[in-house]
Amino acid sequence: MSPWKAAHAGDHFDTIDTPALVLDLDVFERNMKRLQEAMSKAGVRLRPHAKSHKCPEIALRQIKAGAIGICCQKVSEAAVFVDAGVDDILITNQLVGEQKVAHAIDLAKRATIGVLVDHDDQLSAFARASALRQIQIDVYIDVDVGMGRCGVTSIEQAVSMARQIDQAPYLNFMGLQCYHGSAQHFRLPQERQSAIAATCAIASASKEAIEKIGIRVQRITGAGTGSVMLEGSSTVFNEVQAGSYIFMDRDYAANQRDGYDLPFEHALFIKTAILSHPTSNRAVVDAGLKASSVDSGMPAVWQRKDAIYRKASDEHGILDLTAESTIKLSDSIMLIPGHCDPTVNLYDELICIRGNHVEAVWPIAARGALL
Amino acid sequence: MSPWKAAHAGDHFDTIDTPALVLDLDVFERNMKRLQEAMSKAGVRLRPHAKSHKCPEIALRQIKAGAIGICCQKVSEAAVFVDAGVDDILITNQLVGEQKVAHAIDLAKRATIGVLVDHDDQLSAFARASALRQIQIDVYIDVDVGMGRCGVTSIEQAVSMARQIDQAPYLNFMGLQCYHGSAQHFRLPQERQSAIAATCAIASASKEAIEKIGIRVQRITGAGTGSVMLEGSSTVFNEVQAGSYIFMDRDYAANQRDGYDLPFEHALFIKTAILSHPTSNRAVVDAGLKASSVDSGMPAVWQRKDAIYRKASDEHGILDLTAESTIKLSDSIMLIPGHCDPTVNLYDELICIRGNHVEAVWPIAARGALL
Repeated sequence: MSPWKAAHAGDHFDTIDTPALVLDLDVFERNMKRLQEAMSKAGVRLRPHAKSHKCPEIALRQIKAGAIGICCQKVSEAAVFVDAGVDDILITNQLVGEQKVAHAIDLAKRATIGVLVDHDDQLSAFARASALRQIQIDVYIDVDVGMGRCGVTSIEQAVSMARQIDQAPYLNFMGLQCYHGSAQHFRLPQERQSAIAATCAIASASKEAIEKIGIRVQRITGAGTGSVMLEGSSTVFNEVQAGSYIFMDRDYAANQRDGYDLPFEHALFIKTAILSHPTSNRAVVDAGLKASSVDSGMPAVWQRKDAIYRKASDEHGILDLTAESTIKLSDSIMLIPGHCDPTVNLYDELICIRGNHVEAVWPIAARGALL
Repeated sequence: MSPWKAAHAGDHFDTIDTPALVLDLDVFERNMKRLQEAMSKAGVRLRPHAKSHKCPEIALRQIKAGAIGICCQKVSEAAVFVDAGVDDILITNQLVGEQKVAHAIDLAKRATIGVLVDHDDQLSAFARASALRQIQIDVYIDVDVGMGRCGVTSIEQAVSMARQIDQAPYLNFMGLQCYHGSAQHFRLPQERQSAIAATCAIASASKEAIEKIGIRVQRITGAGTGSVMLEGSSTVFNEVQAGSYIFMDRDYAANQRDGYDLPFEHALFIKTAILSHPTSNRAVVDAGLKASSVDSGMPAVWQRKDAIYRKASDEHGILDLTAESTIKLSDSIMLIPGHCDPTVNLYDELICIRGNHVEAVWPIAARGALL
């Protein structure tokens, strides 16, 4: 990592070194409050996904605002948040291999930990390891509700796994993970509505079949920022897992442009400087692939009409400038990341601003927690 | 970062936790030796680019093998390598802003530091700051040789800047940076040949014009892994800057398939495990966007014909399996990154193997050094 910091608390915005990941605290707080209020009103538990921010300072604020805990995607990520004092974490991912299973069960001694299963062998590994250590752990069945990634693909399989979990003395069957990841990025509201309607139908049918054999399904959990109001108002889901809503990226903003029922605002930016301005229609900024993940497209230039971020290389971003552009060498501009989660994972710290000043610098403590 | 490590020295390969970035030391050493021998034979200085590996352990080995120093892309990256004992670094990038200029000049007290300029205002900032501190720093003019990113776009501009550098008491004019980044990825050998021929023509003409006013151009430096043998044998370049050659990624391997005069081998891998296997034709691995940069395409599955890495999401990679696939849940496979530089930047450590054992774990100390 860099031997010096991009900024310190108390610094003026203008002196933040570049590239830096900047969080506008006023906007972040508005986004956090909006979703919490909407879910509280709907009587749905909010368990925000921490894979987006990887920042204990944010998780603790979400919980203080009413969230019932958080989601993580990796067991090492969950360990960082348990160390920071978060006591209820659902790991929304399949853990395989003795080391990861052992880590998850060790964490369950210190916090409420939930894990997903979608395969008999993986379930058996958790049953054995929890019994050996005599530690209870919450287990959810991952159901493929249409995204075609992980998850059981039939109701019979869900019923069979629920029975096995129920019979394992140290596994607590909690319910169903019903996350439709690809639906988050469908552009048209009606596409998202129809995908989540199908999701709800599969979730309800799975629940009914499991309850028919006498096993209670306490939770149906899922949803992301692109669809959270749909699951939230479905009456099928009693827990939602959105993550990006606190930040909003360029990709999710494209959903909003085409109609979205809960507006979030951009709170996350990359401050970047013009390092080269070789021709009147071209400038180059100091934020490239290592400062902004481009998997969902290039970042957008914030509140300027005279520049478009056209191309990223490792440490450079090329801007196309209009003939009227007033951009000069060493000016700084703000970018909206194309995709917030992998962008946040490139930085060690969030520079948190309020108005024109740096209020705090928050460590992105779970950055790089890949295991 | 993760509270535990993927592996320790002495571990068997099979126990390396996933996802992990794995370096095959035998192959790495062969790649390192091949380019060094070729450049030594051609009488050309090799200054490998450390933006690819960000790892002092690698830089020190490259220098021991004959490299004259390294390149860095950021001043904070250079600081990490100076701290580790590297004493000759060319920062192949424009530094703008008082803070970055001051950091570069401070580093020049402790090591030979070169910087690039392509704008009068940036040059003046270096002239002022070096004079104020009374510290000498090497300066190179960045020349746009056809890639259309940074660099001066006319010979007149190069001559004018050489004169200004020459007149500044604490700036040492060293020569020209003539890097053609996009040519590295041209697929056909004749495309690369013609781009580098044009590069050499611009470099020679710029040198001649500057020497005509009595200023010596000591160095013409540039090149990357895709074209290094062309600049190396050009007689125009006396220094080359390849970086990826030690690793080789999927994108550079595509150049090789279509003919390349210096074969490098894949030394860098992502070890990843099957975490879900929901259908006979689909499996999911635990290496997604945060474990493998997909800006140059998906990673390739190493030495298996029964699986293709089709799609990456944040923490998942979806494999399409053939009907004959023998892949099972919790198996591990090796991936070749699509693009090595931004992939390395996602990890804190390189797990270095020799044969079936972990020989060392090297910190990627300049990971995230963005400033």
